[in-house]
Order: sequence, then C-alpha cells, then structure tokens
Amino acid sequence: MSQQTAQSTAAAAWSLDPQLARDTVPAGDLTLCRVLLINDANYPWVLLVPRRLGAVEIIDLAVTDQVQLMAEIAQVSRAMKAMIGCDKINVAALGNVVAQLHVHVVARGRRDPAWPKPVWGAAPPVAYSESGLRSRLADLRERLDLPAI
Amino acid sequence: MSQQTAQSTAAAAWSLDPQLARDTVPAGDLTLCRVLLINDANYPWVLLVPRRLGAVEIIDLAVTDQVQLMAEIAQVSRAMKAMIGCDKINVAALGNVVAQLHVHVVARGRRDPAWPKPVWGAAPPVAYSESGLRSRLADLRERLDLPAI
Repeated sequence: MSQQTAQSTAAAAWSLDPQLARDTVPAGDLTLCRVLLINDANYPWVLLVPRRLGAVEIIDLAVTDQVQLMAEIAQVSRAMKAMIGCDKINVAALGNVVAQLHVHVVARGRRDPAWPKPVWGAAPPVAYSESGLRSRLADLRERLDLPAI
Repeated sequence: MSQQTAQSTAAAAWSLDPQLARDTVPAGDLTLCRVLLINDANYPWVLLVPRRLGAVEIIDLAVTDQVQLMAEIAQVSRAMKAMIGCDKINVAALGNVVAQLHVHVVARGRRDPAWPKPVWGAAPPVAYSESGLRSRLADLRERLDLPAI
C-alpha cells in the first residue's frame, strides 16, 4: 500500500475517542485535526485531534503531519489570542489518561482560577451557558474559517 | 534589516532565563534549541529552549523556526523513548511562571510518582546522584549527537 493510500485509509477509519467526545463540543475540521471546544467556561480551551488512526504520540505522525500539526497549533493559538486577549497560551500533548493523540490549546489569564498552575485538575469544570457556548463556538468557527462537521 | 539578519542578531543576543538555568543542567545545542535536563530524578525531563531573543509563545517564532521546533521535539521524543522505554511522552509549552519560551518533553511511566497526572507540582523534585546525572547526560548527548556547549 502506498503511503498516501495508507494515510487516506487511516483517516477514513479514524473516529474520535468517546471520552474526548463526552467532554467537548465539536467546532469543525482543519486539514489534519478535528477542533473541539472543552465544555469548561473557566478557560477558553480547545483540543486538536489529528484524524489519524492509532496515533498516540506526536512521533506516530508522518513528518508532513507533524508540520501540519504545528501549523494548526499556531493557527488556533493566533485565533484564541485575537478572540480573548489572553496573557498566555498553553500548548500540551499529554495523553496519560486518554491515549488518542490530542493537543490542548488553552488561553490563560492572570485572573483565571488555576493561574499560574496548569489547568489539569486545578479547578472544577464550569459548564457554559447555552448562549455562552453558542457564541464562543461561533467566534471560534469564524476565526478559523471552519465549516461545520 | 533582512529577516535572516534579524534572526542572527536575535540568536546572538539570546541568553537563557536565570530560573530555567537554576533548575537544569545544559546538555547541548540543537539547531534551534538549547537542550536542558531538569535536575529531577523522578522523571527523565528535558527542556527545549529556542535560542530566539524575546520569544514567549510558539507563534512568536518565524514559521521556519516553528517547523524546526517540531522536528527537535520529535528528535528528543524519539531519543527519550529509546533511552528509557517509557509508557508516554508528555510535550508541553506552558510558560505561566517563566516567560521565556520553553518546551517540556517528559518521559512518563505508569509507576512514576505523578502518573497519570501531569508532572508540574505533583511530587517534590529528587536531585540526581552525581553518577546518575553524569550517565543520563552522557546518554542524552550521545543519542542526540550533541556537541558540548
């Protein structure tokens, strides 16, 4: 099988991990990654999930996909900075609990409930209001030029 | 000033943040980043610090440097996986405390003192023994083909 065919097959068979699906709302698809908004109004918090079957580590991706992942991290970081005017962007691929490769991009502010600590496990999640969620998703989709999934 | 000249000037004037210097031992320089080993024997834990003056966010780097950063993250991840046979690589650019852009690459194991939580603030650091530090640094330098700084 050629590398291209192998990659298309991997993309076709890919599906989102159920635990990632449960905690998030889908915003749309970039070239490589599904963009998910974490349902926690404490911080603007996005997950980028490469649509590649079986990828757990960044080094499981082909080099061209690694470059594309970096481009999408940068694109989402710029969008979030512009949306929110935050103090810092946190970017992380941890995956100790959910194995499917996913990259956190979190807009941090000096007054957020975890600052300056990392967000994981720091403050109980606060669900968005219906209108808050709708407006954040619309803003994110517009800035990333995301078609609906 | 051309972009290339600006980048050389930025590299020449760059110096390591004193707090990052205090907590680490230098392993050597890759094309873009200084490689530092964190002096905490709980986990094999490396910092990659792009030698670019004033960079705080990944998006402060030129796109070519972003691509190089991803390549060096992959290179260090592969080296650490081969060295240690860990269960997961954690990669993160946080920077809420120290502004200078730095990327954590941590080799995690199911029996390490923080698993499955992130490492920051999870367990008191344990300094390496002199011989433990020397051997870990030698291993890292060899696998990354790092000249001494």
